[in-house]
Amino acid sequence: MSMNTQPGSAIVLGVGPGLGLALCKVFASKGLKVAAGSRGGAQCAVGISGVTPYTVDAADSESVQKLVDAVERDIGPIRVAVFNAAPRPKRVSVLDLQPQDFEQSWRIGCLGGLQLGQAVASRMCARGESGTLLFTGATASLRGGSMLADFASAKCGLRAVAQSMARELSPRGIHVAHVIVDGLIQGEIAEKLAGPASAPDSRMDPDELALCYWQIHEQGRSAWTHELDLRPYCEKF
Amino acid sequence: MSMNTQPGSAIVLGVGPGLGLALCKVFASKGLKVAAGSRGGAQCAVGISGVTPYTVDAADSESVQKLVDAVERDIGPIRVAVFNAAPRPKRVSVLDLQPQDFEQSWRIGCLGGLQLGQAVASRMCARGESGTLLFTGATASLRGGSMLADFASAKCGLRAVAQSMARELSPRGIHVAHVIVDGLIQGEIAEKLAGPASAPDSRMDPDELALCYWQIHEQGRSAWTHELDLRPYCEKF
Amino acid sequence: MSMNTQPGSAIVLGVGPGLGLALCKVFASKGLKVAAGSRGGAQCAVGISGVTPYTVDAADSESVQKLVDAVERDIGPIRVAVFNAAPRPKRVSVLDLQPQDFEQSWRIGCLGGLQLGQAVASRMCARGESGTLLFTGATASLRGGSMLADFASAKCGLRAVAQSMARELSPRGIHVAHVIVDGLIQGEIAEKLAGPASAPDSRMDPDELALCYWQIHEQGRSAWTHELDLRPYCEKF
Amino acid sequence: MSMNTQPGSAIVLGVGPGLGLALCKVFASKGLKVAAGSRGGAQCAVGISGVTPYTVDAADSESVQKLVDAVERDIGPIRVAVFNAAPRPKRVSVLDLQPQDFEQSWRIGCLGGLQLGQAVASRMCARGESGTLLFTGATASLRGGSMLADFASAKCGLRAVAQSMARELSPRGIHVAHVIVDGLIQGEIAEKLAGPASAPDSRMDPDELALCYWQIHEQGRSAWTHELDLRPYCEKF
Repeated sequence: MSMNTQPGSAIVLGVGPGLGLALCKVFASKGLKVAAGSRGGAQCAVGISGVTPYTVDAADSESVQKLVDAVERDIGPIRVAVFNAAPRPKRVSVLDLQPQDFEQSWRIGCLGGLQLGQAVASRMCARGESGTLLFTGATASLRGGSMLADFASAKCGLRAVAQSMARELSPRGIHVAHVIVDGLIQGEIAEKLAGPASAPDSRMDPDELALCYWQIHEQGRSAWTHELDLRPYCEKF
Repeated sequence: MSMNTQPGSAIVLGVGPGLGLALCKVFASKGLKVAAGSRGGAQCAVGISGVTPYTVDAADSESVQKLVDAVERDIGPIRVAVFNAAPRPKRVSVLDLQPQDFEQSWRIGCLGGLQLGQAVASRMCARGESGTLLFTGATASLRGGSMLADFASAKCGLRAVAQSMARELSPRGIHVAHVIVDGLIQGEIAEKLAGPASAPDSRMDPDELALCYWQIHEQGRSAWTHELDLRPYCEKF
Repeated sequence: MSMNTQPGSAIVLGVGPGLGLALCKVFASKGLKVAAGSRGGAQCAVGISGVTPYTVDAADSESVQKLVDAVERDIGPIRVAVFNAAPRPKRVSVLDLQPQDFEQSWRIGCLGGLQLGQAVASRMCARGESGTLLFTGATASLRGGSMLADFASAKCGLRAVAQSMARELSPRGIHVAHVIVDGLIQGEIAEKLAGPASAPDSRMDPDELALCYWQIHEQGRSAWTHELDLRPYCEKF
Repeated sequence: MSMNTQPGSAIVLGVGPGLGLALCKVFASKGLKVAAGSRGGAQCAVGISGVTPYTVDAADSESVQKLVDAVERDIGPIRVAVFNAAPRPKRVSVLDLQPQDFEQSWRIGCLGGLQLGQAVASRMCARGESGTLLFTGATASLRGGSMLADFASAKCGLRAVAQSMARELSPRGIHVAHVIVDGLIQGEIAEKLAGPASAPDSRMDPDELALCYWQIHEQGRSAWTHELDLRPYCEKF
């Protein structure tokens, strides 16, 4: 592996106003040029210094490949990529789950992760440079649950992709880590889903989460984390 | 849950000359009428007493639904279904894995399991009767591995489906179990893959495996197994 | 490994009126001479045909070794041993847990298992014969829990012993399995702890459990189970 | 939980010239007064600015309690404690493992962790202040292995203690994390065990590890890690 001599860029795929945006901001604050990708064009990232919004469909192989090509051409070689896209859980009985919904969850939540990882790692390996791939997981990445077959199956499949990449690519200098985010993240989405927070800090501060991703990226290669969990102090587990 | 007053039928989806066929035989020997399904029409099951071969594509939702409808119409209400289909691992670098191959592995190995489970459990629940769904897993159901992203991701996704079904359907009387088969099964496929066995019993006897599936089906509902592993005595793990 | 030419004996260490007694009965019904061991002399097993009660302290190395010696001398070579002893969870805050209580839980629940496994496997190996070691686990064998540090630590430590024995002794023909019993077992103890059962079969039938242990012992060595779970159909997990 | 208004102190129990010493240095560099404890008096920490060496026997309840009392009296309220003591694996067959060696491994590696956690957390809770407990784990914390029954059983038991404390004490503001250190740490011990390193960075830099412990301690309570792994980029897993 050669040294990375220029600061280069970061990609975050799956950028909403919570964790995705916080990741963009932390990477930008550290001197990386950041590509913020989402299906809707990462509107929340528009106008943020050092962050370029892109439109991308995680479920579409060509779209992800084009994003990676554009980012490397536009803002520099990718040093770190975060796959932060996830399907919305359907929360229906496994008997009522439509195969096309199950498939769409998998396309966004699992296939998209493979595609981003492949596209980015191929370029890192071709350059003979090191880099980092980070995947956002959930409690459902560890086991299925009632009314959760679609979401859990996609997330468990994504974790297997991350683990496979970690085992194969680590010796080539690519740091792959799977971050299990267990709990609600502060913000409007959580409020719509579950009402106001019950206690201070009972919802995850996206900046705290993003800092943790950054710390993983910064780890020296003699001591790499491949999986960790993150949850509020008052979360049951 | 009402009592099942007639013997009824069993489905095995994924019937080759190894475990699939052994499952058909053990179910037939216990008095169930057995449907043996595979893409090629379950040729190895032709002519076996009590076993009816069917052609089915596990990766195709409609095909699986038609199989289940046909089986219930032709040979009786399904008491136990085994999802034994699995993709062949591609064994290529995760960087070279084609998205369409990754998708096909998932269709066969994960989506197919959802579809069989849904179609069978819906009928069991509609009748208010109990029954059993069995899923064949592998070591790769537990974690990814180098050169195994396609296979591991499908198998981990399938395990999440089985776990979700178990958590949701157990209280409704449907016994769902995931069987981790860790090792090579005796027979021609293993010989082609890995040459002759290195020691007596170092490859799994399909009849021993099939007996275990049967025992799980026979468990009383006060003590159900939801996951177990099976491997030869000399297998490293 | 040579064939076992005489029926031989079974040991169950940890025999109360629930699972322990059911294990003794099932082994005896299959033609084995059974040693039922408990600190109080396995009173519930007195007078049962084919079962000999012994007094043994699982927490005391010498006592366990003496039991094994006596059983082999009195009723024949041991074919299967079950470590079914477990400490009673203290259910106190981890801050209030007395080190001596923590230690006593470990002596009964973990050290005792090592000692039984060692004493029995050494004799099987010395004879060059195969055999089975079964360890009773619990949900707390998989992870700690609030107010459960003593119990969980002993059970997780026991599982590690079982896994270590399985990895080392399987190639020598000793089948080692860890059975995760997740739920309450029918009987007086459950009623005292939790009142009458809420639904039919919501507590585990000890005879069903014992049958499962027997089936593991009967598995051919080409397809051995090393871990499985057992719980009522209506148990949350 | 109230704010911690003075910098306070850190304890590291289990201080040799590798990770233990690096932990002492990183805590001291961040402004904490550090107590370095080991059976031999933490000789390697003598003379290091901000670090006070103590003699303590992790296996002895009274000794650990005295250490904690002395540290709070001498250098200030404890903000973070690391249980870094571990037994040396015996690497003998499970059949040859002496019960007293198995017990001693458990005393050092598991009971010691309970005692340090109890003594420190009791004081934190009594003050109504938050704080951090960190436990050093290993791959053997996750499963047993051949010739590893003693070490794995102690480490799995310790992990259960850490998990139990995390589940109970997190809501009270005590951050408990279990760090799985998978690989050899740079230094003389690794060289004696396994000869010179095979490749640059193939052994863990203790300062990188120590930084990671520090980062966990610094996490805001809305996003706490309870478990992570650390290994060299070229380590098989």
